[in-house]
Amino acid sequence: MKFSKNNAKFVRSLQLKKYRDKFNNFVAEGDKICKEILTNRQLKLKACFVSTAWQAAHPDLLSLYKDIYSVVSPTQMKQLSALRTPPEVLIVAEQQDWSFSALNLDSKWSLYLDGIQDPGNLGTILRIADWFGWAAVFCSADTTDLYNPKVVQSTMGAILRVPVLKVPLEEVKTRHNEISIYAAAMDGENVFRLSEAHPGILVIGNEGQGIRSETRAQIDRKIHIPKGPSAGAESLNAAVACGILCATLNQY
Amino acid sequence: MKFSKNNAKFVRSLQLKKYRDKFNNFVAEGDKICKEILTNRQLKLKACFVSTAWQAAHPDLLSLYKDIYSVVSPTQMKQLSALRTPPEVLIVAEQQDWSFSALNLDSKWSLYLDGIQDPGNLGTILRIADWFGWAAVFCSADTTDLYNPKVVQSTMGAILRVPVLKVPLEEVKTRHNEISIYAAAMDGENVFRLSEAHPGILVIGNEGQGIRSETRAQIDRKIHIPKGPSAGAESLNAAVACGILCATLNQY
Repeated sequence: MKFSKNNAKFVRSLQLKKYRDKFNNFVAEGDKICKEILTNRQLKLKACFVSTAWQAAHPDLLSLYKDIYSVVSPTQMKQLSALRTPPEVLIVAEQQDWSFSALNLDSKWSLYLDGIQDPGNLGTILRIADWFGWAAVFCSADTTDLYNPKVVQSTMGAILRVPVLKVPLEEVKTRHNEISIYAAAMDGENVFRLSEAHPGILVIGNEGQGIRSETRAQIDRKIHIPKGPSAGAESLNAAVACGILCATLNQY
Repeated sequence: MKFSKNNAKFVRSLQLKKYRDKFNNFVAEGDKICKEILTNRQLKLKACFVSTAWQAAHPDLLSLYKDIYSVVSPTQMKQLSALRTPPEVLIVAEQQDWSFSALNLDSKWSLYLDGIQDPGNLGTILRIADWFGWAAVFCSADTTDLYNPKVVQSTMGAILRVPVLKVPLEEVKTRHNEISIYAAAMDGENVFRLSEAHPGILVIGNEGQGIRSETRAQIDRKIHIPKGPSAGAESLNAAVACGILCATLNQY
């Protein structure tokens, strides 16, 4: 795809979920994520727009994408970008389609996100799953869109490596009926003092409401992060709680 | 302070650090944080603007602030607010002045933020310090402004409870010369396998650059968060790493 007014309109339309869903495409902007996409080579690229400077600085990377990439002027980049400061590189790619049957959940931890709404939290959680080598991130239907530009940005590349599947928790349980479901709850066991913990699925609840009652009914084991003495906060940020639980469960 | 065009202009000016510094004031918007401010009673309030509905719903809270609060119309609230959806309640208050000498750092952990830039991260880190009952959060001069509206929002009230002081790490060390400085580093000890750890100061580095060399020179003990097998990510989000380290260090 080369630059044209119509194509710029199409690229900008992908800021909205409606159009991302319709075309099954998404946009990635900026040096860090675009380099990861070009190196990783898992995604089907539709377009790669670069500045003259970026082209000059990355001949090796771009040599693999001769038919796809094209150089645009700063004015043209501004028409493609949703960022306040337009990037040096912008990619349009097809959304990744992770299949359940290709996953290996045996002896591995996974996450189930029960309606995470904040794009920054979703991106940060993928980065956590990537760091700790967790097998997959399952999401409820109402979890925020994986290809929201803020999610793509905040994953720092983890979006390319961590399998993310929108599938109900019940279905995961049906396919792996031995798997245990863990979740944070005030009346749970101290996660630092478990006698043992076998890899299973850790549920992370919605930022405001926590875990929904339908989901709560499926929990096998409740755990909690102990507060310090004289602590004041009512709760931790969802991604922070997720990070503490993943790090600690990985120790068993 | 009652509503007027000039006062609305003043309130909106507090979105900028320049005017927050000049007047030593800040703005808090929305139900959650404003309720905490009115209940906590630590802050000197300059104004409290409420909708008719909010007034009707919170007679007890507002009875303590009869001379301060005033009811505004939705149109007036829109002129005061920086939010896309104007809130039901908005407070203008004096910034809190925490004094070093009032702190009790003995046998308590504290944080030192070495140039945290993202307001969401700063807010989330205060919430972590609040949850784990840490004594204080010290910040380098270039750490993002505590009273940035996004910080105020994301602390979920922790901003009222956790002492935050802009003071160089060196000064903290001079005042408490026995205190140990901990920091995350790739070549550090596994934080889950320390033989012991006595409360000290944990340094959290800038999101992109990590810990600066001047600060690095003052570190007594390096620790790290172990990656999982087959892990991909290069790093964790700064607030998530902070959460994992605080939770784990609290266990010793």
